[in-house]
Amino acid sequence: MVFWTNRRVPRPETPRMRPRVAPTELAKVDFAELVPEPVPFLGQAAYIQLEFFENLARAVATAPTLPAKEGLSAAAGVALRKHHALIAELRRLGVEPDDVMAPFAPATDRFRLATSGADWFELLLGIHITAGMLDGYFSRLAQGLPVELGSRVRAILDEEGASVVLETELKSAIANDPDLADRLALWGRSLVGDTLLIARSALRASEASGDDVEPVFTELIADHTRRMDALGLTA
Amino acid sequence: MVFWTNRRVPRPETPRMRPRVAPTELAKVDFAELVPEPVPFLGQAAYIQLEFFENLARAVATAPTLPAKEGLSAAAGVALRKHHALIAELRRLGVEPDDVMAPFAPATDRFRLATSGADWFELLLGIHITAGMLDGYFSRLAQGLPVELGSRVRAILDEEGASVVLETELKSAIANDPDLADRLALWGRSLVGDTLLIARSALRASEASGDDVEPVFTELIADHTRRMDALGLTA
Repeated sequence: MVFWTNRRVPRPETPRMRPRVAPTELAKVDFAELVPEPVPFLGQAAYIQLEFFENLARAVATAPTLPAKEGLSAAAGVALRKHHALIAELRRLGVEPDDVMAPFAPATDRFRLATSGADWFELLLGIHITAGMLDGYFSRLAQGLPVELGSRVRAILDEEGASVVLETELKSAIANDPDLADRLALWGRSLVGDTLLIARSALRASEASGDDVEPVFTELIADHTRRMDALGLTA
Repeated sequence: MVFWTNRRVPRPETPRMRPRVAPTELAKVDFAELVPEPVPFLGQAAYIQLEFFENLARAVATAPTLPAKEGLSAAAGVALRKHHALIAELRRLGVEPDDVMAPFAPATDRFRLATSGADWFELLLGIHITAGMLDGYFSRLAQGLPVELGSRVRAILDEEGASVVLETELKSAIANDPDLADRLALWGRSLVGDTLLIARSALRASEASGDDVEPVFTELIADHTRRMDALGLTA
């Protein structure tokens, strides 16, 4: 998924990408220095929200209690709103959202299947980890979009969604069943690789390859660790 | 599911239920003469919307094309909005929605499984027929609620939801595969019984039993026939 580009008019105050520097300085490369091309950025972000919606809807349908169903259905509504709001941004740019999203469908569909788990708890953790990492990731990448678009996109992606209900349900499940903690810790770790691959696919290999983006991923993994810690799970 | 009651203060201008009359006059019994008890009415209606949402979300997840996914995801959003709006009405009445919905869950869950079909097209027709009949049914029953509540509930239920996208997808599928028409016609007929049972469960047997509510169901079935006709299917 190559869609990072030099085509945008440079903004003088923020160089597009630092010149290659020594490894110690590379650690300072940050999200604001990556400049996503708006259309495919929005397409991938929108399609990913649709996947989160689908997983949340599945979590609603298989929820063991009505309060869980309620909380998750509200969260599914948020993911759906994010999806439709990103779609609306694509329409504002004069493109057909389906055409833009289509190239991202196969990999994102595989990602959803790979992260939806073997039961309801794994499904919940799968959503919590992947949506937590990717919402944060795309929101930070949006800093590199044209300013107004970028701030609208960040507002869309930063809306509080599933994390509270997912954390509540997972914590109470783990408290009731200590064995579940071990299984979920393992599952949580296995989710990171797939999520990073999706994150990676959003960066143009030629421009942001190898070491350059290492700090971006380091930040993503730090987020993940905080999220696992909050559940009392070993990341 | 017995929740029709005499407990409400009678509104002088609309007698709660006509006295028993001769069969020829019974044909005139209409929805406005049925007085639902607000709390369980809202609970059942809200839970049914959650089921529509779940089926629509499943239709999104299994949609063969991205445009279908898009249209259905918007429809799923509408069902979810209806669900949450009805829940909000329950909260206004000072009750806990989960407690009110819980008694309706088992029968409604069974109903959803029974009407979700063997493939994507049957799922779509299942939603189209059941949501079409029941949204109309509950909206008309809402005429018997206290006036302000009733008009809010009707506005919630009457929001255009899935019917356009479902009709479009089904029509194009039927046009491409004439054999599908026969199978779907059969499936459509088989949905009526289950849907009427759910409708029936919303009427208190003691007050609106037997012939009294026949015209209500006649109207429901006429709706169904119109809906099948629009798809070119024999009802």
